[in-house]
Amino acid sequence: MTTTENVLKLGLPKGSLEKATLDLMARAGFDVRIGDRSYNPSTDDPEIEVVMLRAQEMSRYVELGALDAGLTGQDWIAENASKVHVVSDLIYAKSSLAKVRWVLAVPEESPVRKVQDLEGDLIATELVKVTERYFKERGVKVKVEFSWGATEIKARLRATSLFYQTDKSKTDAEVKAQKLVGAIVDVTETGSSLRANRLREVDTVMESNTQLIANRAAWKDPWKRAKIENLALLLQGAINARELVGLKMNVPKKALDSVVRLLPAEKSPTVSQLADPDWVALEVILPGSQERRLLPELKRAGATGIIVYPLSKVIH
Amino acid sequence: MTTTENVLKLGLPKGSLEKATLDLMARAGFDVRIGDRSYNPSTDDPEIEVVMLRAQEMSRYVELGALDAGLTGQDWIAENASKVHVVSDLIYAKSSLAKVRWVLAVPEESPVRKVQDLEGDLIATELVKVTERYFKERGVKVKVEFSWGATEIKARLRATSLFYQTDKSKTDAEVKAQKLVGAIVDVTETGSSLRANRLREVDTVMESNTQLIANRAAWKDPWKRAKIENLALLLQGAINARELVGLKMNVPKKALDSVVRLLPAEKSPTVSQLADPDWVALEVILPGSQERRLLPELKRAGATGIIVYPLSKVIH
Amino acid sequence: MTTTENVLKLGLPKGSLEKATLDLMARAGFDVRIGDRSYNPSTDDPEIEVVMLRAQEMSRYVELGALDAGLTGQDWIAENASKVHVVSDLIYAKSSLAKVRWVLAVPEESPVRKVQDLEGDLIATELVKVTERYFKERGVKVKVEFSWGATEIKARLRATSLFYQTDKSKTDAEVKAQKLVGAIVDVTETGSSLRANRLREVDTVMESNTQLIANRAAWKDPWKRAKIENLALLLQGAINARELVGLKMNVPKKALDSVVRLLPAEKSPTVSQLADPDWVALEVILPGSQERRLLPELKRAGATGIIVYPLSKVIH
Amino acid sequence: MTTTENVLKLGLPKGSLEKATLDLMARAGFDVRIGDRSYNPSTDDPEIEVVMLRAQEMSRYVELGALDAGLTGQDWIAENASKVHVVSDLIYAKSSLAKVRWVLAVPEESPVRKVQDLEGDLIATELVKVTERYFKERGVKVKVEFSWGATEIKARLRATSLFYQTDKSKTDAEVKAQKLVGAIVDVTETGSSLRANRLREVDTVMESNTQLIANRAAWKDPWKRAKIENLALLLQGAINARELVGLKMNVPKKALDSVVRLLPAEKSPTVSQLADPDWVALEVILPGSQERRLLPELKRAGATGIIVYPLSKVIH
Amino acid sequence: MTTTENVLKLGLPKGSLEKATLDLMARAGFDVRIGDRSYNPSTDDPEIEVVMLRAQEMSRYVELGALDAGLTGQDWIAENASKVHVVSDLIYAKSSLAKVRWVLAVPEESPVRKVQDLEGDLIATELVKVTERYFKERGVKVKVEFSWGATEIKARLRATSLFYQTDKSKTDAEVKAQKLVGAIVDVTETGSSLRANRLREVDTVMESNTQLIANRAAWKDPWKRAKIENLALLLQGAINARELVGLKMNVPKKALDSVVRLLPAEKSPTVSQLADPDWVALEVILPGSQERRLLPELKRAGATGIIVYPLSKVIH
Amino acid sequence: MTTTENVLKLGLPKGSLEKATLDLMARAGFDVRIGDRSYNPSTDDPEIEVVMLRAQEMSRYVELGALDAGLTGQDWIAENASKVHVVSDLIYAKSSLAKVRWVLAVPEESPVRKVQDLEGDLIATELVKVTERYFKERGVKVKVEFSWGATEIKARLRATSLFYQTDKSKTDAEVKAQKLVGAIVDVTETGSSLRANRLREVDTVMESNTQLIANRAAWKDPWKRAKIENLALLLQGAINARELVGLKMNVPKKALDSVVRLLPAEKSPTVSQLADPDWVALEVILPGSQERRLLPELKRAGATGIIVYPLSKVIH
Repeated sequence: MTTTENVLKLGLPKGSLEKATLDLMARAGFDVRIGDRSYNPSTDDPEIEVVMLRAQEMSRYVELGALDAGLTGQDWIAENASKVHVVSDLIYAKSSLAKVRWVLAVPEESPVRKVQDLEGDLIATELVKVTERYFKERGVKVKVEFSWGATEIKARLRATSLFYQTDKSKTDAEVKAQKLVGAIVDVTETGSSLRANRLREVDTVMESNTQLIANRAAWKDPWKRAKIENLALLLQGAINARELVGLKMNVPKKALDSVVRLLPAEKSPTVSQLADPDWVALEVILPGSQERRLLPELKRAGATGIIVYPLSKVIH
Repeated sequence: MTTTENVLKLGLPKGSLEKATLDLMARAGFDVRIGDRSYNPSTDDPEIEVVMLRAQEMSRYVELGALDAGLTGQDWIAENASKVHVVSDLIYAKSSLAKVRWVLAVPEESPVRKVQDLEGDLIATELVKVTERYFKERGVKVKVEFSWGATEIKARLRATSLFYQTDKSKTDAEVKAQKLVGAIVDVTETGSSLRANRLREVDTVMESNTQLIANRAAWKDPWKRAKIENLALLLQGAINARELVGLKMNVPKKALDSVVRLLPAEKSPTVSQLADPDWVALEVILPGSQERRLLPELKRAGATGIIVYPLSKVIH
Repeated sequence: MTTTENVLKLGLPKGSLEKATLDLMARAGFDVRIGDRSYNPSTDDPEIEVVMLRAQEMSRYVELGALDAGLTGQDWIAENASKVHVVSDLIYAKSSLAKVRWVLAVPEESPVRKVQDLEGDLIATELVKVTERYFKERGVKVKVEFSWGATEIKARLRATSLFYQTDKSKTDAEVKAQKLVGAIVDVTETGSSLRANRLREVDTVMESNTQLIANRAAWKDPWKRAKIENLALLLQGAINARELVGLKMNVPKKALDSVVRLLPAEKSPTVSQLADPDWVALEVILPGSQERRLLPELKRAGATGIIVYPLSKVIH
Repeated sequence: MTTTENVLKLGLPKGSLEKATLDLMARAGFDVRIGDRSYNPSTDDPEIEVVMLRAQEMSRYVELGALDAGLTGQDWIAENASKVHVVSDLIYAKSSLAKVRWVLAVPEESPVRKVQDLEGDLIATELVKVTERYFKERGVKVKVEFSWGATEIKARLRATSLFYQTDKSKTDAEVKAQKLVGAIVDVTETGSSLRANRLREVDTVMESNTQLIANRAAWKDPWKRAKIENLALLLQGAINARELVGLKMNVPKKALDSVVRLLPAEKSPTVSQLADPDWVALEVILPGSQERRLLPELKRAGATGIIVYPLSKVIH
Repeated sequence: MTTTENVLKLGLPKGSLEKATLDLMARAGFDVRIGDRSYNPSTDDPEIEVVMLRAQEMSRYVELGALDAGLTGQDWIAENASKVHVVSDLIYAKSSLAKVRWVLAVPEESPVRKVQDLEGDLIATELVKVTERYFKERGVKVKVEFSWGATEIKARLRATSLFYQTDKSKTDAEVKAQKLVGAIVDVTETGSSLRANRLREVDTVMESNTQLIANRAAWKDPWKRAKIENLALLLQGAINARELVGLKMNVPKKALDSVVRLLPAEKSPTVSQLADPDWVALEVILPGSQERRLLPELKRAGATGIIVYPLSKVIH
Repeated sequence: MTTTENVLKLGLPKGSLEKATLDLMARAGFDVRIGDRSYNPSTDDPEIEVVMLRAQEMSRYVELGALDAGLTGQDWIAENASKVHVVSDLIYAKSSLAKVRWVLAVPEESPVRKVQDLEGDLIATELVKVTERYFKERGVKVKVEFSWGATEIKARLRATSLFYQTDKSKTDAEVKAQKLVGAIVDVTETGSSLRANRLREVDTVMESNTQLIANRAAWKDPWKRAKIENLALLLQGAINARELVGLKMNVPKKALDSVVRLLPAEKSPTVSQLADPDWVALEVILPGSQERRLLPELKRAGATGIIVYPLSKVIH
């Protein structure tokens, strides 16, 4: 691990985002190898030195300059209130190409229906500062305590405690005086783990996606900035490729207009003449999510020999 | 699981076809998630509600209207004699893109050579009705009994029984009077499990492939019919894509005719002019199984820069 | 697989009981090896020839004499109404040393509360004959249809069908006329899979445990009967050993009476004099399930140096 | 999860101690089943209700009375400064029957040799309060910051930073001004992960073992106290059994004295007369760790027929 | 890895015997940990330093004194003709407590029936020198060539070659002139891999078991010899324990003689008086392989409360 | 396994290259199935019969004509000095598309710095003949001994032996007289296992890649030669496809020159006119390793809609 002028120190997130991040790096063209227990990760790009670090702390080390750039969540950048340059949004999470949400949740059987019902109560979360800000902005006084994970179980502890269950006559104040957690703020991709824990969402505290961030001094260094921008371009190109597909088809000239009208408007397709003068070949890149709807329509509109092919990178 | 007008109830086969079916659905563009123990499968298409059911019983539930459509084998539709609309044949099985066969088989050492030798004997199978019909059509009287799987072992039980092995003088009638199974009718993709059990095929009772079937009333409902037809198109497109590959090459104009003659006749390739006026680019979709033979021939005929690329969907 | 006078043909159940049965055979002292795909199982006892067969059909093959003896469930012996000699009850199931129960169950939201509410309805089960008998004895007329497994999903199909959910005004008769399953009879060890499927138990149709059964002719053959009895003894010895533990302790003579009174009454413990004339050593075999209660009590009664040790076989 | 007078709410640690704890509970005689994602753990003792919680927070919930008792580490009880009753020390950790140590460690190449060298530096740890106390007692001023795990990598970040590596002329103060971590306090069972990270131990901050703790009010309730004490007895009995073995041997009377002298002094062995008047049988429980040394010596001293057997529980 | 006077350098076999050897060491009381890729194995006995080495070469390194002692097969000691002290035979192999055999084998369809039929032929084996000696002793001239494993396939190559199969008129000499392998000498525990390759055994070339061997100089050093002898004792004690079981039973005095007569004669059982003057307790260690036969007989002879318990070490 | 005129006997390497070779065959279009224990591999090409053989011995069997062709390493062809026809170089190894190196290595702490320092010493290797040649060409006299693998441990044995470590005064000659290995020649893809063993490379003895080789007589047979050439073409096509990617982009005509200048010079890209007269589409195949550098440059040069797509076969 030698550090010269032309090496970019890049932090990658250890833990829940780790696998998705290494997959993305690989599709972007960087082979990052993590040894046993994450010691000494290596890349096949001699100009990049990788450090594995928890997403929670990444932005602090980028801010301090121990790292030139890093991949981490918006949530943790906000939590740390780190002064870093945000290079680009990379919308992917542990198991999907989507944002995550931090939600305020209570046990299904809790009487709490809106954020104001939590006045005076105790909130457990890993995202303490963001949560405090959320309640402050809404003028609701609560105590936010740091939780070591398994947050959902804490919410249930009150729900299943003696007082709560057997003595419905207790006043709200008496229940709160127990110092057990009244609500939690936890992160979720699909909401399914909340439901499995029989928790009910009250509100969304924050939406968050992965971001590529840079140290401000590094961003002013021309070599480092160019290196970071290229990395951003390749990472974004790999994310695009997972969302898009290539589509080719043969279209009789007389049907061309109605076929083109079916396609998304943003970009004109590549049209080329076939040997048969009455037919053209038409090629376009489009979101995979539209395939299901488009393919039957294209066929009905007269397209034939429709093929869809996979992409590895797309740069607009 | 709410049921409105615009929801298609789709049955998918649980068990041996399950994995291949979910893979096919995914390639067709539908993300079906099966929870633990198959409870509550979900899809990302809000217009489709998935129910996991044994292939053996699928057609009955489609016939009754508990399901609008379903994927199951021709064999079980025949066994149940279900009155359903067959939408399309989807040629895939547990481990290949092929039909399966129900074969009449006997132990290697059995004296049975043709179906008539089984007159008066006992046949074990999971496909009772189809087997009864098969013997009836051939005028051979047998008793067909339902078998709970592991059918092949039953065939061997007689082969290894005391009478059969030690007392070759027993008459056929005496052996049959023992009430042990004389032959089985079992399903096979490649025949290898029959050989491993030292069984010998006597005849093929039925060939079968997966089919998309629809309830007759659902098929008359315009919305449901369109939805089922789109589904059929996308499933077939995904199956095609696994059998076909995309092929591109550069060809000198003077070699174009001989190159084109090598290609399968069905469809003219897409030809486009290259910058160099003596060369054209040629693009065609062809069965992957022809690659092995075609590529060396194309090169010899003068094609260069031959590339083969994977497809995700092909709709003719 | 040669068959001589002094070979016992023993059927072992393939499928859900298979692993538990082979473990039990191993602890009883018989090393049974099952090759790939269950062909040609072998044992280290040259006097036993093993055949793997579905539990559902075992008793028929024992009855016919294709097997001399077999391990299978009481449920399937009853279903087949097989005439066999029951040698012994071996209380173990797939994942515990307990009986299983076949329960009559309906969806949580079903109006059915007692067996009589199912009059005229359709029942799905793998255990058709036993179920028919159960309803007949109670004078309730139903149609019982064979189910290929995944029975629980069928019960839910009606619960989620259009009629049932959206048209509460339907009469019972109208709902039943739909020919969808109204209740199921399914097997369960702990009831947890029923709850996970949101089914509600209405009644227990049958309790069942594993039994060692013998062909009636084989049971009259002295050599075979002795062989089967020895096998029963060793299997039972191995089951006992999993339920029992060995317990030793040192007890001051004056506390001996109060210690002995704490122990289960059936059998007097082995008492031996220690070098110190005021102390005795006491040794006893007792059910592991009593340990949790007994150990603290024994210590309080004056026992010291209490040790519990594992057993591999116990024959009373 | 109903809560009556006669139910003990017991917290078990989720995470790194989880597997070892459930194994221990099983050997103690309690079958605790954790469903997917730790929801709804269940036990076979109707008088115990299990809650899975992070070891870090256990003592707070026991203190508040949300739990009657819990298993957690001494380290986290100290960190939380929780007022709870310590019932017993249970010496086991993630992968051995030993204590863990929280060690102060620095990169191998760090100039830091003793705790005083860290004056003015930044320390990262999960155990913030205990670490602050440690430094305060030694009169060394440091800033202790909470670390989200992967603590060892932080220590290396400074070791590999530009300043530290390339500019040896930097004064200590200048290096510390960088705000990168100078040392960590991390937990270790064997020290091997520290060595693998090329870290060097400077001091042990705290030794810690698992403890069974009780809420103070619960401890005063006679039923709960008896229940907790019984649990402690059974857990300790299971731990003992893993450390001890049973040893039996036959000894000629004339060698008895010299054999007995070899045995650990604490407890006299059980001696019994054999049929042959010149021989006695001798039985004793001893630490497995002494076997390696003792067995050869016992044989040389004249013992024969020496056998060692496993134990499942030992209560002194 | 420091080397002082009081350290024994012990070689353990890497590869096929590795797992069985480490299991045996563990049961003997030595916790040997092998890191990734076998670097730096460690033990919990500071007086033993472990080196992992291929069994094939072990005896050479013991002979040279690079190791003080080692575990390896008799076969490879013979192959290397190493001058070492054989401390003890430890009868265990990869998957059983048995010897292995090196067998001379030919394809099933080979005309070779006895060793003399191989005169002038080519033999492939990993055990070159032992095989050469075997043929020399029998006066049969062959060429023995070293084989890199997968030896069985070579034997089949000739069996399937053109000449051999299609031209039965070829003389033996002509076939041999082809220089393809005529027979192999390969190792087998059970013979099953030979049968699976359709090879036929012609003769046993050598039987072999694992041995503990010592360097001759080390054996003369009193400390090292004592250390090696203790190790031998503990390893043998662990092997014994896997073959033997402990048996206890209560016997009415009048049945004692007939019960004792059933037991193996070598060693008198431990008999102790029970509280009831008419009964004695009887305890004995016997081979697990006799259990199956003995337990039913003991019960018939009058023994009750028969228990079998597992052992961890037995030293005669 | 019948052998007719029109069958090519093809040897594939068993062991470390096996998985990579079967993957390559699959991508080349040949489905090779290896049964349990490698018996009876089968292909879906009836004209090819596959034999699995150790890479070390492959060339001998090709030379003898037992096989018509085979895939094996250059290293083992050299070691066996086999007279075979080399058809083509296929650059792939166990875990990458690269050559392997046989390196001369010594323990880190060895005084050996150059090959001459090993005069009179002992060298262990699997590649005995090549190593002997290497030393002979350099005029250095050594003894080369065959090593059964785990070669790296042998090198360390001297490094850790008593003499070497404790008696630095020993002369070189005395150390060598010990007959322990002084250096090894071992194979490596990345050098990481050498470093993990704390070995230091002194020189590269040989570079090696996989080759397709043919028996000389088979190469003269027109049918066999054509079959082998086709196989070579398809294998090479599949290797190319893993190293290359397809690239398409839209380019404004005025930027065409600068874009084309960025592309590798070897081959002109396919340019086609888009509907918009100011734009052209440009398509080219290029090494995946250049993507990382090229994509940002192409975008800066004016290309838009850049897509990269995967290839399955490329034939130049």
